[in-house]
Amino acid sequence: MIGTGSMAGGLLMWLWLWLLAGPGGAVWPQPQHVRVWPGSSSRLVPARFRFGYARDSAVGPGCAVLDQAFLRYWRLLFAAQRRPPEYEQLWEMSCNELLVSVTKPGCEDYPNMDSEESYKLSISEDSFLLTADSVWGALRGLETFSQLVGRAEDGTYYVNKTDIVDFPRFRYRGLLLDTSRHYLPVKAILETLDVMAYNKLNVFHWHIVDDPSFPYESAAFPDLSEKGAYNPITHVYTPNDVKLVIEHARLRGIRVIPEFDTPGHTLSWGPGAPGLLTPCYIGSKPSGAYGPVNPILNSTYQFMAVLFREVSTVFPDFYLHLGGDEVEFTCWRSNPEINSFMKQMGFGQDYTELESFYIQRLLDMVSSYGKGYVVWQEVFDNGVKVKPDTIIHVWKESVPYQHKMAQVTKAGYRALLSAPWYLNHISYGQDWLAAYKVEPLQFAGSSEQKALVIGGEACMWGEYVDATNLTPRLWPRAGAVAERLWSNETVRDLQDAYYRLADFRCKLLGRGIQAEPLFVGYCDHEYSRS
Amino acid sequence: MIGTGSMAGGLLMWLWLWLLAGPGGAVWPQPQHVRVWPGSSSRLVPARFRFGYARDSAVGPGCAVLDQAFLRYWRLLFAAQRRPPEYEQLWEMSCNELLVSVTKPGCEDYPNMDSEESYKLSISEDSFLLTADSVWGALRGLETFSQLVGRAEDGTYYVNKTDIVDFPRFRYRGLLLDTSRHYLPVKAILETLDVMAYNKLNVFHWHIVDDPSFPYESAAFPDLSEKGAYNPITHVYTPNDVKLVIEHARLRGIRVIPEFDTPGHTLSWGPGAPGLLTPCYIGSKPSGAYGPVNPILNSTYQFMAVLFREVSTVFPDFYLHLGGDEVEFTCWRSNPEINSFMKQMGFGQDYTELESFYIQRLLDMVSSYGKGYVVWQEVFDNGVKVKPDTIIHVWKESVPYQHKMAQVTKAGYRALLSAPWYLNHISYGQDWLAAYKVEPLQFAGSSEQKALVIGGEACMWGEYVDATNLTPRLWPRAGAVAERLWSNETVRDLQDAYYRLADFRCKLLGRGIQAEPLFVGYCDHEYSRS
Repeated sequence: MIGTGSMAGGLLMWLWLWLLAGPGGAVWPQPQHVRVWPGSSSRLVPARFRFGYARDSAVGPGCAVLDQAFLRYWRLLFAAQRRPPEYEQLWEMSCNELLVSVTKPGCEDYPNMDSEESYKLSISEDSFLLTADSVWGALRGLETFSQLVGRAEDGTYYVNKTDIVDFPRFRYRGLLLDTSRHYLPVKAILETLDVMAYNKLNVFHWHIVDDPSFPYESAAFPDLSEKGAYNPITHVYTPNDVKLVIEHARLRGIRVIPEFDTPGHTLSWGPGAPGLLTPCYIGSKPSGAYGPVNPILNSTYQFMAVLFREVSTVFPDFYLHLGGDEVEFTCWRSNPEINSFMKQMGFGQDYTELESFYIQRLLDMVSSYGKGYVVWQEVFDNGVKVKPDTIIHVWKESVPYQHKMAQVTKAGYRALLSAPWYLNHISYGQDWLAAYKVEPLQFAGSSEQKALVIGGEACMWGEYVDATNLTPRLWPRAGAVAERLWSNETVRDLQDAYYRLADFRCKLLGRGIQAEPLFVGYCDHEYSRS
Repeated sequence: MIGTGSMAGGLLMWLWLWLLAGPGGAVWPQPQHVRVWPGSSSRLVPARFRFGYARDSAVGPGCAVLDQAFLRYWRLLFAAQRRPPEYEQLWEMSCNELLVSVTKPGCEDYPNMDSEESYKLSISEDSFLLTADSVWGALRGLETFSQLVGRAEDGTYYVNKTDIVDFPRFRYRGLLLDTSRHYLPVKAILETLDVMAYNKLNVFHWHIVDDPSFPYESAAFPDLSEKGAYNPITHVYTPNDVKLVIEHARLRGIRVIPEFDTPGHTLSWGPGAPGLLTPCYIGSKPSGAYGPVNPILNSTYQFMAVLFREVSTVFPDFYLHLGGDEVEFTCWRSNPEINSFMKQMGFGQDYTELESFYIQRLLDMVSSYGKGYVVWQEVFDNGVKVKPDTIIHVWKESVPYQHKMAQVTKAGYRALLSAPWYLNHISYGQDWLAAYKVEPLQFAGSSEQKALVIGGEACMWGEYVDATNLTPRLWPRAGAVAERLWSNETVRDLQDAYYRLADFRCKLLGRGIQAEPLFVGYCDHEYSRS
């Protein structure tokens, strides 16, 4: 009754998969160039191992990003040990050290779209060396190093002689969390950022508010969360929470792009911002229901100016996500004032014109704050004039996304792919495979067009997801997207990916992350008998 | 980008669902008869509330099942309180007490198929009374009482004046866990038993061994787990673990039916039981692979006699599950000794005859140990002669299960339904609805046939499930099956069920169970800001 087709096939499959299980050393996502000498390994003794800056490094002690990463990875590597060694004292009798050399001077404050993430790792019997142009590349290399370290049956740690030259295929490798349909406690967000870093993902797209709830605590408009959050005390993100998330992300080389989606998806804004939403009508009278943001009032733009000025300050990344998707016209259509405005503007019956009118003003406003923006594909589809550096987020599955990728890049815009990566959509079996098989550049277009694809984003919408099931639903499935966006396009072998992803998932368990299994089997050390 | 069809429909839906959210007091599964007086409620003060035995109760202090349940439910009710009151001291100034009266003398050792689970609950302003024929019914009533207690905004506990007369529609309400495809730590099993009791489920079907691993530590054949478990130290169930599970279940009125599935699904038995499995051949030579249990050797039956004698002793329930599903004939067909035996027995080319030959001997053996058995439907399909009291477990989805239910009961056997309740099969959205809509007696048959349906069982096979995702995948989805099997067949209103199940899921969260959300929303008290 295993319900997976014929028994013979099933048996063969799990036997095969079982045989694949073996000791670690594999890396996820697969680096661009790896050479390993399995016969030649160095032993790591926790108390005598440390991370340090190379003499020629342009960045040294005092750079929080690396100082803290050293501490973090020491703990991740030697989880069984209580604490890192007292470096200075033990160092006299030291054995080995991973020396990190950053070539570009400066401990950068925040990662950005142009951050350099390449690195080289050279592990031999007498030296461990990690070189990178920037601290962000060094972070990626530290993660790789931590995955190379294996543990023998007798409990000793070792690492094989290895040479790695690595860099990401795409510069934008994102993950969306939705904190409106269900509130996610800060702890769950921080843990997700940890696992993103293990996967070398580098953008946290925070879909922070939406119709169901408004958990963002605004300094300018405290009523928005006071009246729009599920609970104004327990289900909100205070300014301090937001800072905590941004700092946790920064230390892991992850950008935070918040989304304040308008003019649709704003129902929860209504109670805290009277007059902001369009009153819907039944015949000649307001029905009491509300629709999208009211685009015909000056007060709307005054409100947005203040809110987005705040958001532009709170979130340091150059980009904001401005949404713009799924605007529903029924309510606008029912409202007589909207209709007389439409007439006055000469929009006829085309409500996309009205939508564009709103979005245009919003984008200009955000531009004036010195920010760039990402928008959902409808903004492009509706012909809104956007800045040439706008990023169009392709998400719709109704039209094949390959067509949209071709269209968007043909028009000269940068494209971000999410359509095949809605990981909230689940199905029985190994559905990570579908996400893994995607090839983002497989569409009809010139090489100039392909160069406009900045990357992609796995989305975990929150209709059916909260802190109870987020982690096992996200990991290791989102790892499939992470490898597709980091590794070379030739890395497509499903058996090899299965082996490495199953191994990586066991590493995640070892790091305390409740990542679900890919298939039948077990991990060493997954349980201790208590 | 919520991906659930039109926005308007989506909005309406969540608004409607949101409106449904409200204070507790609902019961899951729905009792047979309930009358509530919402205007009339009693306050419960934790330090002045206790459970006690009524004077006329035929069972009193010293009955572990109830003594421990009193303690457990006190803690569940007043989770925020550190510990139960010192009963004797506080009692002088006591306010209220739930008095339990069991009419049938005797604190029964173990629940069984004929256990009486009915109860009556009468909550008025001056007395709380729970009466039941047996301690098992009293347990069900305690669970109902615990769900009736609400908490006001000021933190005080209250219960409305309520009359309930309740009993289960089906006597067998089971849940299967698979500890072979992935090992589940004992802690995960015990927690599952807790949640089963909250759902009034009463049979834990422990699919303890299968092809991938053999975690059961046998006293007679220690090599089975020594060589067949994923890890013979960490991934096994010791005799003590098994006792712990059985006792934990007993105290909650839950029977434990272990399954040792043969002759197929036994690959993991091979390494620890040389000669037990059929050697497969390629041409005239053994291929090195093994198939099902070898049914032509006396040694096989000697082995099974010892193993099943042990199992019959270790597990106190009258029933064992003997499996018998998905026997693959390829290996038997390849083996020359099997074929000469087939000839000798006059079986021709019909390997189901050989399968039946084996099963028949196994069933007779287990009968001789004074046990009854449950078997998967293939045993019935293949025409094996089984005892009249055999339970046929209907699981196949290839043929409509309604036909099989009709066939099995027509032949006079008792039927157990699982086909529509393979909860390991997941899909996007509210898939609890499909499980909920099932009507087990909706098949062509006489009322005598319908009476042979003893109940059903939710199955959580382990291909993709281990301790990382078991709880959110199981709960509250298995609750849909629990209500279908407990409540009256007229309880089918999906809106009402949604409301109560969402409320029940919040109660589970409050009890520390990571049950996943049904849809958009939140629970009061789901997070505390730390």
